[in-house]
Amino acid sequence: MPDTFEDHCWKDIVSGEILEIYRAYRRDTYIGKRPALLAIDLYNLVFAGGPRPVHEVVKEFPSSCGIYAWEAIRPIQELFTLIRSAGMPVVYTTAEGRREMRPDRVRSTHRRVRAADEHAYDIRQEFAPEAEDLIIYKERPSAFFGTPLIAHLRGLEVDSLIVCGETTSGCVRATVVDAYSFGFHTVVVEECCFDRSLLSHKVNLFDLHHKYADVLHLEEVRQHLQRIGKGIETNTGRERR
Amino acid sequence: MPDTFEDHCWKDIVSGEILEIYRAYRRDTYIGKRPALLAIDLYNLVFAGGPRPVHEVVKEFPSSCGIYAWEAIRPIQELFTLIRSAGMPVVYTTAEGRREMRPDRVRSTHRRVRAADEHAYDIRQEFAPEAEDLIIYKERPSAFFGTPLIAHLRGLEVDSLIVCGETTSGCVRATVVDAYSFGFHTVVVEECCFDRSLLSHKVNLFDLHHKYADVLHLEEVRQHLQRIGKGIETNTGRERR
Amino acid sequence: MPDTFEDHCWKDIVSGEILEIYRAYRRDTYIGKRPALLAIDLYNLVFAGGPRPVHEVVKEFPSSCGIYAWEAIRPIQELFTLIRSAGMPVVYTTAEGRREMRPDRVRSTHRRVRAADEHAYDIRQEFAPEAEDLIIYKERPSAFFGTPLIAHLRGLEVDSLIVCGETTSGCVRATVVDAYSFGFHTVVVEECCFDRSLLSHKVNLFDLHHKYADVLHLEEVRQHLQRIGKGIETNTGRERR
Amino acid sequence: MPDTFEDHCWKDIVSGEILEIYRAYRRDTYIGKRPALLAIDLYNLVFAGGPRPVHEVVKEFPSSCGIYAWEAIRPIQELFTLIRSAGMPVVYTTAEGRREMRPDRVRSTHRRVRAADEHAYDIRQEFAPEAEDLIIYKERPSAFFGTPLIAHLRGLEVDSLIVCGETTSGCVRATVVDAYSFGFHTVVVEECCFDRSLLSHKVNLFDLHHKYADVLHLEEVRQHLQRIGKGIETNTGRERR
Repeated sequence: MPDTFEDHCWKDIVSGEILEIYRAYRRDTYIGKRPALLAIDLYNLVFAGGPRPVHEVVKEFPSSCGIYAWEAIRPIQELFTLIRSAGMPVVYTTAEGRREMRPDRVRSTHRRVRAADEHAYDIRQEFAPEAEDLIIYKERPSAFFGTPLIAHLRGLEVDSLIVCGETTSGCVRATVVDAYSFGFHTVVVEECCFDRSLLSHKVNLFDLHHKYADVLHLEEVRQHLQRIGKGIETNTGRERR
Repeated sequence: MPDTFEDHCWKDIVSGEILEIYRAYRRDTYIGKRPALLAIDLYNLVFAGGPRPVHEVVKEFPSSCGIYAWEAIRPIQELFTLIRSAGMPVVYTTAEGRREMRPDRVRSTHRRVRAADEHAYDIRQEFAPEAEDLIIYKERPSAFFGTPLIAHLRGLEVDSLIVCGETTSGCVRATVVDAYSFGFHTVVVEECCFDRSLLSHKVNLFDLHHKYADVLHLEEVRQHLQRIGKGIETNTGRERR
Repeated sequence: MPDTFEDHCWKDIVSGEILEIYRAYRRDTYIGKRPALLAIDLYNLVFAGGPRPVHEVVKEFPSSCGIYAWEAIRPIQELFTLIRSAGMPVVYTTAEGRREMRPDRVRSTHRRVRAADEHAYDIRQEFAPEAEDLIIYKERPSAFFGTPLIAHLRGLEVDSLIVCGETTSGCVRATVVDAYSFGFHTVVVEECCFDRSLLSHKVNLFDLHHKYADVLHLEEVRQHLQRIGKGIETNTGRERR
Repeated sequence: MPDTFEDHCWKDIVSGEILEIYRAYRRDTYIGKRPALLAIDLYNLVFAGGPRPVHEVVKEFPSSCGIYAWEAIRPIQELFTLIRSAGMPVVYTTAEGRREMRPDRVRSTHRRVRAADEHAYDIRQEFAPEAEDLIIYKERPSAFFGTPLIAHLRGLEVDSLIVCGETTSGCVRATVVDAYSFGFHTVVVEECCFDRSLLSHKVNLFDLHHKYADVLHLEEVRQHLQRIGKGIETNTGRERR
């Protein structure tokens, strides 16, 4: 097998010396036995302003990820198709919107937010939830903090996660670190995550890949799932751990 | 007051365009009313191999932070002196070492670790704990995960944290995100944190500063504490929230 | 001071021998410095069927507490008046009702529940929330489990709780044990809690009072709050700990 | 199948009227698919003073459960034999003893405790841990609170718990409620749990059985495990849920 462990978007900013330092983190990557898709904060507001550069759209929409959000739509749709074809559970997160839960007091970052219209935190139509799906409303960055997610994952008999959404350096990272801590094997799909800054996007994927999760390309996920579908791969990763 | 919000170690890698995108995170920084010092993983092993470049020392000691660890010793000592003079509580974390708690199964990252000698996870002598201090033994990156830290902080009537230690992109980041989520105002002292890679160190401080914490220089912490000592500053940050 | 530590509703079922065994739990009781009222599950459904014996109303309404719920209305109203007069924060819990959060899968007990009308989990009008109050929607018995309550209490600078609601042996007990574990001093107001069974009500109050909380009569709470209002009592309990 | 749902130690104190009220909790009981044994606080101190009435031994040993502890030794030994024969994971809890973790400040109940000798919190020899077992040191009543237990259970791929130990109204109850909340099917073995007071023992088992767990007799556990061993029972309970 060719060594693809470092064949990712961070290649152009991570030096050979750094890769040398991170040799002790190298290992085979895999998808768990009973994964769920966890789609983080794919709500309308993050697409606000259209597919334009982030530094332009944030002037009007400080919560938007602009062009990076729009470029991820197609890959995320493909990921949803793969997951739904495999019959795996789908879990979404979005922001708590009920005023009496005081989301104004307990927020996901220090960012100043503007009053949003009533559909700002609805999941964008391209990824619309289906009847069996679970939606987790959260006030903090991690999908696990202050939510019953852990109980739902236990009830669904899920042992691993496949993560997409935004932002890589915010809610995605916080969620993946918690998933690791709770003991879930976690895959982060590179083309299906995005951020406001490419620098933070790349370095956070680098950190997650080495310390806590397997960052895979969408194409790798597709191949893993196909091999599982054909019974070629048991994909548990148990032997390798 | 001059605008010092972005006057930090990440200046050389974060572009003006990115700073523009992050304007919505700008705010005044401060130290909380009743802070505790939280010193993360300042154990012997991270200094192993001496003050040499990390890519050299990791060949023999994959857990070492080499020169970056050694350069932080003096600033951390100064921070401890400031905190102890102010009579603030001191909390340490280190790795769980009791074999029957199976730290081999539940670990803080995917990094392969080698058998360590029995004092590898003792706090380094320059920062030796005193009788009243609290030590939290942990298996995961965050000082809050799988530990009774939150109960001790409540018992100590602490409302905020001042954080130092390592690594910036690992246990420091995971801990600070959890501290934010639990509702503690958190200060990260720039010169008193370190990592194996400068790139991850800088970008993680950048992320933390904008989203979850106030990254302050040691000199700023000194001035804040002096003003508090003289009653000039109430430093609560309450009005500003 | 007369010994009133055991002067509670459990007197008629707890023997002198048991009281002897529990001597090591005796201590002074008090109200914390910055308490919040935590009103647990005072929703319409628990009053369904009117003020009749529980074994009658449960035939039609398995979730009702019948007469015990109705007898608590007046004392709970008085407690709310005391708390609101003192300007203390008020927090409610009720059941999660959003279908996409799948409360059908993650429930507060093994009890079979029937389809409820859309206002079943609204707070009963006698205790209607005001604009500044916080409502926590939960799926499990404890108000802390799977909710952001701990973050809100930190933000409100609350250090202790005054608890009322139902059921004593269910959500009240689970919440009070968690409050104790997180480090909050907790008062449970005897006349303002209720259950479906007097036996479980009494034994659970007995357990909570000795191990985890101070069970006070409403009259004791009134007197504590009056003395605090007049500055006679500092009521911190700090010296006594 | 004869109706044995209420055939338990609480029969002599729970009236027919109460049983009528609790009809909505009746269901089939079972053992999960991949259970672990969770043995709570079976340390030396709880047996101190020998097999004498509790109100006598507590004069000298306030933490002892006296005769009730001693009567449970044989059943617990039998339970351990059953579990170890089936190759199931074994997890113990005991009290945190490291002084620097300040167990004097964060305790499991309000009970005053005396200085204990250095082996007070060692697991009693009849149930001595083996090399593969996990021991969880805790400061609060629940085995989940402030410990990494949840991560270890995930790593062990455990989906359910079989619980024994003490006290029924203290650490056993708090742990079982948390296990329920996290989504683990939980069996409590009646003869293998004990308390200082029979009243609290019985009412807490009653509460747990109806709301959160399946209280089984040791003999029922033996029969379940035999049927599973012979492949007669799949024992998942999935269909029944």
